[in-house]
Amino acid sequence: MVGGGQLARMTHQAAIALGQSLRVLSQAPDDSAALVAADVRIGTHTDLSALREFAKGCDAVTFDHEHVPTGHIAALAAEGVKIYPGAEAIVFAQDKRRMRERLSELGAPVPRWRPVSTAAEIADFAAEVGARPGEGSGWPVVAKAVRGGYDGRGVWMLADLAAAEELVATGVELIVEERVPLRREIAALVARSPFGQVAAYPVVETVQRDGICVEVLAPAPGLPEELAVEAQQLAIDLAHALGVVGLLAVELFETADGIVVNELAMRPHNSGHWTIEGARTSQFEQHLRAVLDYPMGETSLTAPAVVMANVLGGAPGGMTLDERLHHLFAADPGVRVHLYGKQVRPGRKIGHVTVLGDDMTSVRARAARAARWLQEGK
Amino acid sequence: MVGGGQLARMTHQAAIALGQSLRVLSQAPDDSAALVAADVRIGTHTDLSALREFAKGCDAVTFDHEHVPTGHIAALAAEGVKIYPGAEAIVFAQDKRRMRERLSELGAPVPRWRPVSTAAEIADFAAEVGARPGEGSGWPVVAKAVRGGYDGRGVWMLADLAAAEELVATGVELIVEERVPLRREIAALVARSPFGQVAAYPVVETVQRDGICVEVLAPAPGLPEELAVEAQQLAIDLAHALGVVGLLAVELFETADGIVVNELAMRPHNSGHWTIEGARTSQFEQHLRAVLDYPMGETSLTAPAVVMANVLGGAPGGMTLDERLHHLFAADPGVRVHLYGKQVRPGRKIGHVTVLGDDMTSVRARAARAARWLQEGK
Repeated sequence: MVGGGQLARMTHQAAIALGQSLRVLSQAPDDSAALVAADVRIGTHTDLSALREFAKGCDAVTFDHEHVPTGHIAALAAEGVKIYPGAEAIVFAQDKRRMRERLSELGAPVPRWRPVSTAAEIADFAAEVGARPGEGSGWPVVAKAVRGGYDGRGVWMLADLAAAEELVATGVELIVEERVPLRREIAALVARSPFGQVAAYPVVETVQRDGICVEVLAPAPGLPEELAVEAQQLAIDLAHALGVVGLLAVELFETADGIVVNELAMRPHNSGHWTIEGARTSQFEQHLRAVLDYPMGETSLTAPAVVMANVLGGAPGGMTLDERLHHLFAADPGVRVHLYGKQVRPGRKIGHVTVLGDDMTSVRARAARAARWLQEGK
Repeated sequence: MVGGGQLARMTHQAAIALGQSLRVLSQAPDDSAALVAADVRIGTHTDLSALREFAKGCDAVTFDHEHVPTGHIAALAAEGVKIYPGAEAIVFAQDKRRMRERLSELGAPVPRWRPVSTAAEIADFAAEVGARPGEGSGWPVVAKAVRGGYDGRGVWMLADLAAAEELVATGVELIVEERVPLRREIAALVARSPFGQVAAYPVVETVQRDGICVEVLAPAPGLPEELAVEAQQLAIDLAHALGVVGLLAVELFETADGIVVNELAMRPHNSGHWTIEGARTSQFEQHLRAVLDYPMGETSLTAPAVVMANVLGGAPGGMTLDERLHHLFAADPGVRVHLYGKQVRPGRKIGHVTVLGDDMTSVRARAARAARWLQEGK
């Protein structure tokens, strides 16, 4: 796996059960996965010769992020490396403009959007959106960096022309999108093997704060069955159409008129961490099964209600993380904790917790309390 | 963890979730755990200086087997190493004579037994056992090596004096025990922290073949509640009385008259592998929580019926293990597989499978079929 973050760390856990050992290409020896994997190579994912050396002897190569240049991926594939997802698929997770174009071609539900290079174009787009009844002025609009966005970075809510001018002045390549009047965000996660088998997980609700996923509820509470099936079918169709091998996470807006695609990810995804204990097969094992071309595992829930809450680094001071963990374990012996071995920095994802049970309300409260304990020590 | 077998391998998986990385003292670089852990030291557990070097910088030291000399454990403890279970506890898992003596003192239910050094003493013991009504001749008796027995090795069923003479001639230090008229074997697993907190898992049935555990059923089907509670209470009492820190597995015979202690183990135990998916906290995490003095985790079942089946190496020839795994995953997408990364040798434990569900009969059939597939490829 290229990339040594927490996704590779948790994939290594899954690889162990399959009788494998994950080789990790890590930028630094103290990256999350590098701390726990037996076979760690230090190198950069933009360095083709490092990737080539890394791939030697691997049954298959995959990624814990979407930042490997597609040219490098294509080069390795041409040399016979089994590398998944392939360049022709992952480009749609790297490049938001290409993604929006392709999804539009495929007839998938997307927000109105446009590539823009000037503030005037953004204002025109807002005016067009605003021209429809009930849309107000069209502002604010959502601007997104075509490349490199992550965890809320690379997304801007533009209130007016002045804000648009300021952003355009930075020179970043942009698309703009209408602000979708969403009820909530949901996500559909599927995995596809080279053979073409696809397995779909139950659709979940994702709760965001400041652009970062803080909570995932599985299954999405009160989601009408037909909408859940539609979301799963959409993700399955996209996995086939885009030729994805491995996981595909489709982040969706649920609106009064149905579902709209927000983002795509082609790797283990934060919205799927609940599957470690909450689904019969974890997303990490599923991703490995897909890239190694094993038959897919069962995706059903292991409990009626599952909630994952991210643990972000809290403000410095007070109890150590280890002391907090002691208190949490004493307070709730049933909570499942996953720590990533990272240095604590405010706002940084340092772990997650998962709680399972019969009642979503109480499960959610327990998960939130557990995350808060680890984060704030209270 | 001292020892690089599958128990350390699975403990490493649990350590990762706790934000830890397991350091492993392994005899060879291709031992099960050494293949997957980041921090592997090669050395022998009988070498005190290797143990001392290994322990430097560890928060706590524990074991994946019971073969570390108690003198070495005591020496490290005297030097300030947190090493669990301690020498004063683990001796009862190393030395069957000491174990039987101590259990007898504590009033725990044990078979009639005796240390012996001659065939005549064995014959005397058989005669005494046979003198009781309904016991026949007293033969066969069970002879056990005082030290070093494991997975059916070091245990002999002696049919008569001639067999006793043959065994005694080998010079191995022995105890003899009456052959207990058992209904079945069950096991009670508990974990105890230095603080003294104890958590008990549901009592399971263990199915043996040729002295090797082949199947574990959780919870033990049809076990009367009072007997289950008695077994758990016995294990809790023994953990306290023997001063165990970490896991204590108490292997028991269920007889018409109640339960009888067969063996003790003080480490993650084959009878507890089902807990990885089948209990809210796996035995591996629980052992780590105990030796690191965290509060214990919840031990409840995650499904009404859980079955673990061991996968032994099959006869050579036919499909590779990897091909068998493909077929198994296609046939049963819900089975959970754990492979240990070991070379296949006939009869060697190379992995295990776990199946969860509502109905013990069908769950057991699925687990047996899955294990047979991996073992025999059919």
